[in-house]
Amino acid sequence: MTADRRPAVERTRTQRAQLALALEVCGTPKPGNVDRRREYPDLRFEHFLAGAIGAGAGLALAAGEGHGAPDAPGDGERVGVGRAFERAVAGMSDQEGGNTQFGALLVVVPLVRAATRGDLSPDGVAGVVADTTVADAADFYRAFEHVDVAVDDPPEGMAELDVRRGADAVPAIEERGLSLRDVMSRSADRDGVAREWVGGFERTFGAARRIEAGEGPVPDRAADAFLDLLASEPDTFVATQHDPTTARVVRERASAARDGEVDPERLAEKLVSKGINPGTTADLIAGGLYVALERGVTV
Amino acid sequence: MTADRRPAVERTRTQRAQLALALEVCGTPKPGNVDRRREYPDLRFEHFLAGAIGAGAGLALAAGEGHGAPDAPGDGERVGVGRAFERAVAGMSDQEGGNTQFGALLVVVPLVRAATRGDLSPDGVAGVVADTTVADAADFYRAFEHVDVAVDDPPEGMAELDVRRGADAVPAIEERGLSLRDVMSRSADRDGVAREWVGGFERTFGAARRIEAGEGPVPDRAADAFLDLLASEPDTFVATQHDPTTARVVRERASAARDGEVDPERLAEKLVSKGINPGTTADLIAGGLYVALERGVTV
Repeated sequence: MTADRRPAVERTRTQRAQLALALEVCGTPKPGNVDRRREYPDLRFEHFLAGAIGAGAGLALAAGEGHGAPDAPGDGERVGVGRAFERAVAGMSDQEGGNTQFGALLVVVPLVRAATRGDLSPDGVAGVVADTTVADAADFYRAFEHVDVAVDDPPEGMAELDVRRGADAVPAIEERGLSLRDVMSRSADRDGVAREWVGGFERTFGAARRIEAGEGPVPDRAADAFLDLLASEPDTFVATQHDPTTARVVRERASAARDGEVDPERLAEKLVSKGINPGTTADLIAGGLYVALERGVTV
Repeated sequence: MTADRRPAVERTRTQRAQLALALEVCGTPKPGNVDRRREYPDLRFEHFLAGAIGAGAGLALAAGEGHGAPDAPGDGERVGVGRAFERAVAGMSDQEGGNTQFGALLVVVPLVRAATRGDLSPDGVAGVVADTTVADAADFYRAFEHVDVAVDDPPEGMAELDVRRGADAVPAIEERGLSLRDVMSRSADRDGVAREWVGGFERTFGAARRIEAGEGPVPDRAADAFLDLLASEPDTFVATQHDPTTARVVRERASAARDGEVDPERLAEKLVSKGINPGTTADLIAGGLYVALERGVTV
């Protein structure tokens, strides 16, 4: 053509978050998880694509983009991260696979808010976490009503605060004056996402650095980062769904795969056949992909 | 949990259109096209996911929706379908694969507008087409500046209207007073998408019916509908990129695959290895998926 190429319109923050979720499920092999080559009969690849796209409205609330159209006025922090998360989960849930990205959204939403504040860094997201309120905690509990999330029984004396109670637990949250940060800190010893919340998202930012430093297609880099993370610590979702021993064995196998002693494709087949699904590690990769996209990694 | 399950938030029209594009590329085997199992080194699966998500703002303009947030006020037909299309292409183009969904968006955008008017039917979309203006035609030409689109040389005496001229052709369009419908009708003999525009989207609605009537995962149904369409008429994109004979041979092979005489997976391998890419057929499937989602097909 004779005219100069007009520039493409850059993705919005909302779209970068949606794309991070979609890229996460695209990367393969991600031993045990749904990816573009592997799925479970009732939890399929397209459920994750639908979840990623459907989460858009809630992500837009986190991004203060309201409309998402690049020329639409942003509406800043009109809602808290708890409410943005609850809306994202509500939109994610309009598909038949069940819980596809509850944990991933719990990682991504505060990162989106930190980026919206102009400080997508461990300190920036720690600030977002520190600013959470009791209302955010209440909305977090309400999010559990949209979808079944596998969680452990609460510790002794915490039955009132069992997340599985959903909105019924809100009076107890309010009575005790717990912020969402407080809620997360009580689960940090046994939940890898909660641990990120109270620890400056250290492993998430580590995954982002690995994805940024990698070469080749971004989904391949994300799959490499997944294996790295899985090899470094037991996945807490595996520990919850199965038991801590299984989580430790999976970590060892992932370590062997990362070091070339085991074929990652075979490990993927094996874990899927046993229904062992390192979901927390995938959640952190979704966050790492979002950070990498914000920092200019191109697809 | 003790509380009743709160309903998921339904996808917006914008999100249904994004999901239709994502599901289209997900379905496999779609002989010759990128799908979740096959890709080209420079045109990969993730480019299509990025294109589907990035098109969101333009699709929202077609839908009269604030991008995604279900409670955001719609702004109706603030912009024409030409402008909505051009914005969708601009957003789609923010990835490194080049032209992923230009044709698919050209099918989907008028369908989104018809749905927005409350009449997603052949008559409804024919009305959208009939209402297009010279301004829509000008925006359509501007869309060619975002991405390289494979097109034939224009017919004798039409050089001024060559779409590859992009915005440079706009004065000629205006001088002749051509609406976007007029532009499409001039290409209908050799472009399968233009033919849909002037023929009530007959094949697109046919694909939608097949997807609606099918069973099993929606991407599988879309792949079946793809093979059906490819078997029924030569793909005009193949005719443009290669030649009409190649397009006819591909149609025959697809017909054999549909009838069980040829393994569709092997046909897919063969076409990909030859770089034969029946893109127009995929465009219509994207439209068919959108219609099916609007009509209540669930994922």
